[in-house]
Amino acid sequence: MLATDNHIGYNERDPVRGQDSINTFKEILQLAVKYDVDFVLLAGDLFHENRPTRETLYEVMALLREYCMNDKPVQIELLSDPDEGKAAGFSFPAVNYEDPNLNVGMPVFSIHGNHDDPQGAGPQGALCALDMLSVSGLINYMGKIDLPINDADALNTGIAVKPVLLRKGNSKLALYGIGNVKDQRMHFELRSNRVRMFMPKDKQDWFNILLLHQNRVPHGPQQAVPEGMFDDSIDLVVWGHEHDCRVEPEIVAGKKYRISQPGSSVATSLGDGEALEKFVLSVILYRTKNCQTHLWSRHVALLEIHGKEYQMTAIPLRTVRPFVLDDVSLAAAADDEGLDITDRMEIEKFLKKRVTELIEKANTTWDERNARAVEEGEAELPRMLPLIRLKVDTTGVSDMSNPVRFGQEFQGRIANPRDVLVFHRAKGSARSGGKVVVEQPELSIDDPNLTNSEKLSKVRVQTLVQEYLSAQELQLLGEAGMSDAIEVFVDKDDIHAIQNHVSNSLKNLMKGVSLDDDFDEEELEEMVEKVREKHEKEYLERQQNGGVSIKAKGKARAEASDNESIDSMMMDVDIAAGSDFDEESDPPPKKTTKKAAPKKAAAKAPAKAPARGRGKKAAPPPSDDEDEDEEEEEAPKPVKRTNRAATLSQSTSKKAPAKKATAAKQATLSFAPSGRTTSTRAAASRAKKKNEVIDLDSD
Amino acid sequence: MLATDNHIGYNERDPVRGQDSINTFKEILQLAVKYDVDFVLLAGDLFHENRPTRETLYEVMALLREYCMNDKPVQIELLSDPDEGKAAGFSFPAVNYEDPNLNVGMPVFSIHGNHDDPQGAGPQGALCALDMLSVSGLINYMGKIDLPINDADALNTGIAVKPVLLRKGNSKLALYGIGNVKDQRMHFELRSNRVRMFMPKDKQDWFNILLLHQNRVPHGPQQAVPEGMFDDSIDLVVWGHEHDCRVEPEIVAGKKYRISQPGSSVATSLGDGEALEKFVLSVILYRTKNCQTHLWSRHVALLEIHGKEYQMTAIPLRTVRPFVLDDVSLAAAADDEGLDITDRMEIEKFLKKRVTELIEKANTTWDERNARAVEEGEAELPRMLPLIRLKVDTTGVSDMSNPVRFGQEFQGRIANPRDVLVFHRAKGSARSGGKVVVEQPELSIDDPNLTNSEKLSKVRVQTLVQEYLSAQELQLLGEAGMSDAIEVFVDKDDIHAIQNHVSNSLKNLMKGVSLDDDFDEEELEEMVEKVREKHEKEYLERQQNGGVSIKAKGKARAEASDNESIDSMMMDVDIAAGSDFDEESDPPPKKTTKKAAPKKAAAKAPAKAPARGRGKKAAPPPSDDEDEDEEEEEAPKPVKRTNRAATLSQSTSKKAPAKKATAAKQATLSFAPSGRTTSTRAAASRAKKKNEVIDLDSD
Repeated sequence: MLATDNHIGYNERDPVRGQDSINTFKEILQLAVKYDVDFVLLAGDLFHENRPTRETLYEVMALLREYCMNDKPVQIELLSDPDEGKAAGFSFPAVNYEDPNLNVGMPVFSIHGNHDDPQGAGPQGALCALDMLSVSGLINYMGKIDLPINDADALNTGIAVKPVLLRKGNSKLALYGIGNVKDQRMHFELRSNRVRMFMPKDKQDWFNILLLHQNRVPHGPQQAVPEGMFDDSIDLVVWGHEHDCRVEPEIVAGKKYRISQPGSSVATSLGDGEALEKFVLSVILYRTKNCQTHLWSRHVALLEIHGKEYQMTAIPLRTVRPFVLDDVSLAAAADDEGLDITDRMEIEKFLKKRVTELIEKANTTWDERNARAVEEGEAELPRMLPLIRLKVDTTGVSDMSNPVRFGQEFQGRIANPRDVLVFHRAKGSARSGGKVVVEQPELSIDDPNLTNSEKLSKVRVQTLVQEYLSAQELQLLGEAGMSDAIEVFVDKDDIHAIQNHVSNSLKNLMKGVSLDDDFDEEELEEMVEKVREKHEKEYLERQQNGGVSIKAKGKARAEASDNESIDSMMMDVDIAAGSDFDEESDPPPKKTTKKAAPKKAAAKAPAKAPARGRGKKAAPPPSDDEDEDEEEEEAPKPVKRTNRAATLSQSTSKKAPAKKATAAKQATLSFAPSGRTTSTRAAASRAKKKNEVIDLDSD
Repeated sequence: MLATDNHIGYNERDPVRGQDSINTFKEILQLAVKYDVDFVLLAGDLFHENRPTRETLYEVMALLREYCMNDKPVQIELLSDPDEGKAAGFSFPAVNYEDPNLNVGMPVFSIHGNHDDPQGAGPQGALCALDMLSVSGLINYMGKIDLPINDADALNTGIAVKPVLLRKGNSKLALYGIGNVKDQRMHFELRSNRVRMFMPKDKQDWFNILLLHQNRVPHGPQQAVPEGMFDDSIDLVVWGHEHDCRVEPEIVAGKKYRISQPGSSVATSLGDGEALEKFVLSVILYRTKNCQTHLWSRHVALLEIHGKEYQMTAIPLRTVRPFVLDDVSLAAAADDEGLDITDRMEIEKFLKKRVTELIEKANTTWDERNARAVEEGEAELPRMLPLIRLKVDTTGVSDMSNPVRFGQEFQGRIANPRDVLVFHRAKGSARSGGKVVVEQPELSIDDPNLTNSEKLSKVRVQTLVQEYLSAQELQLLGEAGMSDAIEVFVDKDDIHAIQNHVSNSLKNLMKGVSLDDDFDEEELEEMVEKVREKHEKEYLERQQNGGVSIKAKGKARAEASDNESIDSMMMDVDIAAGSDFDEESDPPPKKTTKKAAPKKAAAKAPAKAPARGRGKKAAPPPSDDEDEDEEEEEAPKPVKRTNRAATLSQSTSKKAPAKKATAAKQATLSFAPSGRTTSTRAAASRAKKKNEVIDLDSD
């Protein structure tokens, strides 16, 4: 079963809608049980808040324990290493149904989204809410990618993706998860061959699913991930983040794979402003001359796989609150129906009639659906108050009543009385009487998923911070990084973001300032000033390049200047790039400028590569070979401070030396007889299975 | 195994000490495994922060999963209802080793402390960090008590304590948990017979342990819980909260029970200011003319029980950072050793020598202990940097160097270079040169466990809030409640505390203000003003009475005016009080004043009680009978909005009607043969066991 963007905890303080997201997640789990699925796949944003409230975390844990823990035999055999990505220093496996102490009947696999992405830098690295579920054995978190944290993370070496390999009977399934990173960065990593996919040698025999959580609809340059940039060995891409429901796998021009976009399971935006264009509403109910009524319908997807064949079935969710969106122009109503737009009471009466119609429409639809479900043997659900949004074009109207007071009359009949009406005006007319749709701020906001008010608050913080900082004449810390740190502090509720930024920045500054015992204070100030300026400049450049260090960036530009025509570069790991990254794992060379970098890297790489004892294809020139995956020996040696690519592959690099000797042997291991896969307790057979793990390691 | 006050997460950002608390908790779990204990008992403050960071929660979850989940047979049979206190709406039991889907080898039972107490009011009631561990099956959380939340909670009806009943062989153990509430309230509840202990009928055959987490050392009136106020049927009280280690059970004058105080497993205060007096240090190392050196030693306790006999063994913890505290007077040093106290450099040299001596002392002790442990077959531990605190009496010295700069020299040699020195002066001398010990603020602060700086920040917030609010001429909301809400917001990191307070207050206000359709605005203002004043007054009175409603308070005063001589009133549940509380579950009577209350309650109660169909002892006069426990029929009928007494008994009141019919039968059920208790998986026998549950219900 596929689901995504459950956004649990969204609007949880709302007296009417507070339990919506959790109720729908419960329905999804119940559907998964009903359809007797092998496992549940989630494509990010399980949680709406980066730090979910206790109430939310508690309910999610309870639901997962209730529906996923039971005696049902798990029939999917894990062929990848169950310990990859496990908590450092502990013995229990990363994959919960491999733990002999837990009776997992229905495993859940999930990547993180942009809302619930990892933050912080403790002994276990960055952590997110999914880690809490994973460490307690309730889900299997995959696709973790460390974020570049401030200046210290310039050594960042791309994204490595290791699959979870599963088998049931003759069907072999590889799950590739890439949790959300900023689109800018993902775009860059894809373009510059820094996304390394580790695939089994017989990848063509596997059904390969890629889970990701990025913008699909472009919002400015590099503000989305192009659909056609993934490897041709992928069979299906499950795309999270975009909230409209496009379950049916869609063809991508020139690619073999298709994209399925299950869409969100809860309405986090009522489609005002630019959000409206993004949301493709699945049912258009009725259409009049000057208004359209949409009714939102949400689904989970049932994915059936047999070998390389698959079938996707959308299952409508019944606990989703009906949502009707409509549009009306008062001027048009004046023309068509003779509405007196100078009379406030008259307008109010007109709008109330409209809203009442929409409520009836929503309720009728609910009742029809409910009746259909009951016919099909489902339980009857009590009617839910609908979400109603009427967008009113007030152009030419001078006196409008207060929309909040207007909504009070609908209390108890709709779920959102406070914002049922949204007023807007055609461009050129400056003011409107009531609530005004907030104008899109000039600044670029990364996340198109935010409501306008969220964006507005974001912009205000940024603006305030920038204004404040630029007035300070900072001696040690630059403005740019501080502004980002404050954003994380505000958006991700990370109280240590600023502290971390400051201490990292200071550490970096210290590197550039060497002191004798008796230094001159004036000299010190000068030195500090220079170093700060340098770091500030570097930081800004790195920001423009999607958070990636300057040298690598320069190289990527040189190689991959065309955005659209690049086809599946992600598999491509060339030696030049590899040695360049190795280089960066040492203390960063001083005074490297942006332009010098690519040349340097290219010059160094071929000379160094053979000395490292790489095999048959020691130093090929950079190529666009699409089938690089079987040449994993070519992958750059993991640098000391590497990204943890996927949670489920986190510990790989540490284990590499021990495995090296047996790599050849493991690679040719045959699989266990398929009868084993139906054993009730994975526990008993775990020791046995360990020998059958498919090894994806490079060196 | 007994442990308490682990304060995990304390000082977690400290580069040296950050992992101390988690390391010691790990050691405790390892000791529990080593000694093959039946279960672990924690007496509160497992977490230092009310909302632990992800890092802390993650590590604690991982440790519990690592050490508590295994195939080891649990030999303690649960005789109380495993479902009492389970998550509402879910099927898994509250006691983790009764869950057939979890292999629990070593159960952990815990109450909450004052640091990690429940907050908020979601669908599952107030939640705390322990709930996250409990819902994921990692611990068994007991002793939950809802806090009185603002005005709406005036219906608060005391504290009901239901035990967890365990048996191993012929030994029967009853665990009574009372999580922390404000001392004021606990004191009041004890004095006014509102703590109801539900005990098995044959309580004398059980070994009865009471876990609590309150101040034991008095800090002003009602700022501690007297040692002698508990029921005589209790055999042992395990007292959390107090950080000094007094494991050896101590006699309580005039009582049969003893008190064991395991003490904290981590140093959260370096004993400056008033904290010093509170901490009884277990080892005095050496003593010179003008200074004492203490070395802190921390223990967990191994409790062995056979029938009613028990034995307590203190086990020293090895991962506890050595802590040496010393005291020096510069004036005395001038007299005795001829120190020139006008020479700053001379003083610095003198102090450095002292600190160096203390470091050596600490290291020697560590090495000796380590050597002893190694002799006993334990692993050698790498030496930990010690905590050193030198209190310097600077009376008569005018020029002192900066203590932070002083500490820099000891970086890498001690764990707390920033605060190794603390300066203070004899009273009368106004100023000192360096860091001054913060003076105890005038305001009464409830928690003697706070450091002075924590207290200071607390006072500041309170003062600021009060000043601000009193300047506002508030029309609707009173100052008093708001100040409390802001305190919760700050201390417990509960972002909704203020919102909750406001909406509750408004709800209460609304009750007193009834509006016609056409009301006069001036009239409204007047009405609102009156109601606000009334509520404000009531709130303040309730605050003075420990958060308990006025009527009950008045009654308690009348009955229990003597603080010290009250002996075991807690078992006493009289009808008058009962009906009084019942009364309060209706909308609170208007215009009740403090003085009128006791009379009214006394007058009403006897008349009403028989009408409610209470049994044989319908309306006895209030008595001090100590053996009330077997007369549970007398307990007041649970009011609609009752406190959830203990987590493990939460669902009792809801289940009462269903159980009523079978109560007599259940009460006489005989226990299962003891052979059963050693079955490997509690799972298989759970259905069977359900019939044997001991019923403690009252009506």
